[in-house]
Parts: sequence; C-alpha cells; structure tokens
Amino acid sequence: MDFMITNAAIEKAHKRIKPYVHHTPVMTSKSIDEAAGCSIFFKCENLQNVGAFKARGAMNAALQLSADQKKKGIATHSSGNHAQAIARAAQILGIKSYIVMPRTTPQIKKKGVIAYGGEIFECEPNIAARETMLAEVIKKTGAVEIHPFNNYEVMIGQATAAKELFEQLNNPSPLPLSSGRGVSEERGGGEGLTLDYILAPVGGGGLLSGTAMAAKYFSPSTVVIAGEPAGSDDTYRSIKSGKIEQAQSQTIADGLLTTVGVNTFPIIHEYVKEVITVTEEEIVAAMRLIWERMKIVVEPSAAVPFASVLKSKEKFKGKRVGIILSGGNVDLERAAKLFA
Amino acid sequence: MDFMITNAAIEKAHKRIKPYVHHTPVMTSKSIDEAAGCSIFFKCENLQNVGAFKARGAMNAALQLSADQKKKGIATHSSGNHAQAIARAAQILGIKSYIVMPRTTPQIKKKGVIAYGGEIFECEPNIAARETMLAEVIKKTGAVEIHPFNNYEVMIGQATAAKELFEQLNNPSPLPLSSGRGVSEERGGGEGLTLDYILAPVGGGGLLSGTAMAAKYFSPSTVVIAGEPAGSDDTYRSIKSGKIEQAQSQTIADGLLTTVGVNTFPIIHEYVKEVITVTEEEIVAAMRLIWERMKIVVEPSAAVPFASVLKSKEKFKGKRVGIILSGGNVDLERAAKLFA
Repeated sequence: MDFMITNAAIEKAHKRIKPYVHHTPVMTSKSIDEAAGCSIFFKCENLQNVGAFKARGAMNAALQLSADQKKKGIATHSSGNHAQAIARAAQILGIKSYIVMPRTTPQIKKKGVIAYGGEIFECEPNIAARETMLAEVIKKTGAVEIHPFNNYEVMIGQATAAKELFEQLNNPSPLPLSSGRGVSEERGGGEGLTLDYILAPVGGGGLLSGTAMAAKYFSPSTVVIAGEPAGSDDTYRSIKSGKIEQAQSQTIADGLLTTVGVNTFPIIHEYVKEVITVTEEEIVAAMRLIWERMKIVVEPSAAVPFASVLKSKEKFKGKRVGIILSGGNVDLERAAKLFA
Repeated sequence: MDFMITNAAIEKAHKRIKPYVHHTPVMTSKSIDEAAGCSIFFKCENLQNVGAFKARGAMNAALQLSADQKKKGIATHSSGNHAQAIARAAQILGIKSYIVMPRTTPQIKKKGVIAYGGEIFECEPNIAARETMLAEVIKKTGAVEIHPFNNYEVMIGQATAAKELFEQLNNPSPLPLSSGRGVSEERGGGEGLTLDYILAPVGGGGLLSGTAMAAKYFSPSTVVIAGEPAGSDDTYRSIKSGKIEQAQSQTIADGLLTTVGVNTFPIIHEYVKEVITVTEEEIVAAMRLIWERMKIVVEPSAAVPFASVLKSKEKFKGKRVGIILSGGNVDLERAAKLFA
C-alpha cells in the first residue's frame, strides 16, 4: 500500500502544514552519546504543538477537507495526543471537533481538548465502546472521521517529522554550531550528516510507517528500526507471523497500547528492518536518562526507541542514529511515581 | 565597582568562552504567555554545559590563568552547579581541580564532579567549615580559588548569557520562524525585538550582576528585575537597607541560598530596579508550569523569575520579558515530591 505515500505527497504535506506546526529542534548530548556508545540525534517532537508529532498528521488531514466536510466538522476516538491534535486542527480551521474519550482518561487530557474547543463524548474504556460511540457521533453530526493512524493523510503528515530531521542534518546551515556534541537546536547543519539508523516507536504505526516512507525517499541508505514495549509487542509478533497480531496492552508507554493498523502494517512489514522490544524497566531507565541529561520532558512512549538503542549497543556502536522523540505529555505525578 | 565590568570585557569574555559553552536556545510558549499575560523569552541555560549558566563564568575565569597558575590547578567550595563547572573547566584545560563540598551534598552532584576529574574534599555542611577546608586545600596545593560569584571574571562570564539573549532577539536570522509563539530555538531572530524587562534569579548575585551589566551595555532600555525566594530574601532586604543583609536560607531553590556578595551587591544596588520575592508554593507552581507546558526540566531556582512574573502580572502585562532559566539540575526523586 506504499504507493499511497509518494515522495511528492510528503513534500506537499510538509509545505501544507508548515504554517501550523513547529519546526522542532534536533538535540544532541555528549553524555547521552557516551552512555549509548553512538551519536544520537533526537528530533524533539515533544516540543511540537500539543506536545507530540500528532499535530502533523491531524493538521495534514484536516487541511484537505472539502468546504462541505468542514461545515460538518471532524471526529475521532482517542485517549491521547491525537485527541488534542484533532481539536487543535479544528480550532485553527474554525470548524467543530467531536472527540470520543474513555471516561478514565486523565483530566489533564480532557482539559486540553476542551481548551482547543473540542466537544468530548465519554464512553467506557474499551475499544468496542469507543467505536460504537464514535459511529453514533458521526451518524448524528455527519462529521468526518480522522483516524489516529489508519489514514494515509495522517501517515503522510507524520512522515514530515523524519523528513525534517534528515533535512536538518543534511542541509548547510548558517547558524553558529555549538561546541562539542551538546544540546543544539540546529547543529549538524552544515556537516552534511547521513544517519545510519532512524528509530521511531510503534503503537498503531502511523509515525513508524511515515518515518519508513520518509527514509525511503529522503535518506534511502538509512536503516529504519522500531522500538516497541515488550508488554505490547504486537508489531514484533506481526512481522514474525506476517499478519496483524493483537496487542496485549500492558505497558506504561500509553501511546503504544494500540495494535498496528491495516494500512500501516504492510508498509512497516516491507520497510522496517527490525523491531526491538524493551521491558518496562528499560523504558523508565531510558526516560530518566533523557530527563536528567538532556533536561527535557518526554513521555514513556517517546523513550522506547532510546531504550532500544541502549539494549542493542553492539548494533549501534559508533553509528549515527536518529530518534524521533514522539511526545512529552505525561502527568508529572505519574512520572514522579516511575522515578521514585 | 561596575567599572570592573566593561562593555569590552564582556565582549572579550564571550569570544573567549564560545568554543567551550553552548549557544543555548531561546524558547517561547503560547500557553505560558497566556498564563502570564505577557510575551516571555526564556534563555535556556538549563540546556547549558553542566546544566547551568555556571559553565560560562567558570570557563571565563579558568581561561585567564597564567601558565604557573595552571600548574597548580583551581579550587572552590560549592555544593552545586559551580562545582561541576569548575571541574569541567579544569578538565578542558587539562589542569587539576579541588572542590570542597559539604558531606550532605547529593551523591549525583559528587558524581558529576568526579566524572569531570575533580578531586572532592568533604566538610561539615556549614559555611565556616567550607571556608576553613578550602583555605587548607589552597595552602596545601597552591591552587587558585575561583569563587562562585564574588569574582569579576566569573561575573563577566555570567553576563554573556543575557548578552546572547539580546543578540538572539535583535539580530536578523535566516532561520525559518516557527508558527505562532510556540517553542522555537532561534525565533525572534529577524524581528528585531527589544525586551522591556529582563529577569534573573539572585543568590550570590553573580548571574544577576552580570545580567544587569549586559543590559546596561547591550540593551539599555531593558529594565532589570530580580526574582528571589521569600525564604532567602537577603538581596531584597539588602537593597532596602543599603547594606548586605544575611540570607536566612530557607527555600527549595537550593541555588539561591547564599547571601549576596560584596562585589555583586554594589552593581545590583545600582542597576537592578526591583527584587520580587516569591513563596515556596509560587516557585513550585511556576516550575510545574514550565515542565508541563514547555517540556523542559528546570531546577527550582530557575523557576523563581517566572514565579515573580506570575505574581506581578499587572507590571508585566503585554510586555516583552526575558528570563534567564538558570539551570536544570534537580534530582528527579526530589522534584517528584514537590509535584506530588
């Protein structure tokens, strides 16, 4: 199904969403590199609007609605970052958004949706209830569903994060580079770096499939690898069996609980070289290192690829590794318990 | 005493230390601005080497040692970020460093010093014990003391943080600006912004006096204001009485426990318009907002100026406000307790 995602489509999407999303910095850290034994370039989508890469895909899909579709608004079910991304995209376009959320969703995430003018419909916390409720909402409102990952325009939007990272490392930049390999937003620019590897986390596979397609077109020598929690290793098992396996959904990486999608899996199967699974302890340790050494807040899901690198040091030894830091939305109380 | 810190001295220091410290990003956040009612430009020294602005002053002082002095090494007493900054500066120069630390200093800070090759001398946790031990170390080794703030080369080094912020906001930049007022490393560039206010926290006064001198020379219309914990409001009281008052030292802002210095106070007295004091609760609330909205880790001391802005909304309403985020070194377990 990768014919749906072309070079030109990603280019166009990137131009389309640029006025509405941040050109997030690339950060590096000497002490992180020492800990990992390789050179890591973090694409900081935790600093993206709504605190996650989801702003890209939602915006790309929403910007392509027809005038008639806009009148009716957009809808989705999500307990996480996609919910806020859809509400924000709708607010920017001046249209309505309807978000189905499990009643157990943390208050802070509901508040985020409301702040962007989204209308929340609460349901029981299971996938059947979410889908039933969403179908009802769509029937009533006529809104267009924008799925969190099983949507080509969303996948194409997510691809722009990796495209941007490749560009930031490849294109000459007139900015003064900072010393050493420390934190620096635009460093690497001017050095013409090509990544040996790029890693993204995998839940439903929107970001991972987009990253794989971006690598194919914009950095073909870069090997794409996924990080996945062992407690929700459906993609790992799906690649082994060749068909979509269901997620078990036991992980603190709450952005990665979903099962890989019917549209994302074929691309992942073809273009992702390997899925590295990591334990809960490995995720927390990686997350702690990022907070402590890089002084940035990332959510557990975002730490999964870095945990994968730390787990497979031999593979990455001395290599140039890109990592999409997918998001930074975490309740501080919850994070506190993980670090306690 | 401000004649010790000239325009040219700050310019020279900036060139001198540039190869050894990060050109830290300036970050902005729409939701932070909405919360504060003004436009805030955060100079992210939490992303500086050793996680704090202290890298600047220590490096500037160390780079000016004579060959003879270098042979003997450098020494200081510090329980905090200056200790690591001195050890790092010594490591870069290939010389020895001797750091007197209270035995109660968190293990993580001792480890930081050791990682940079510093030699630690433990003492009882009071100022008399620290000074006695340091005098002994210097007598034994012949090392040069580099005081954390009562040292003009250190103060000049710290001045470069504010100078850099003014430059980042004033100088045209070819970088694509990000949309809205969101997080963006070099945004503001090209817009030729002049700050109405600049705020720094005050402990011993090294950063604050440097900031005041940088404003005087590089942005004379910018009003300089200090943020200080009410639980350690010696600078507030010193400005009132016209002489140095002792700090009470009761605050979670552990970087601000010291009493303002004999060299820093005269400059602060002359050039700092106002000291705004904030409670412990206000510091934690400001710190939480920065972590949650900006997705960056700052230590309690760094949140004090932002807490001051939130406390004095009328004063800053609609203004352009620069804030030096002084550092990001905080034990995650400790931060967790603050947020619990």
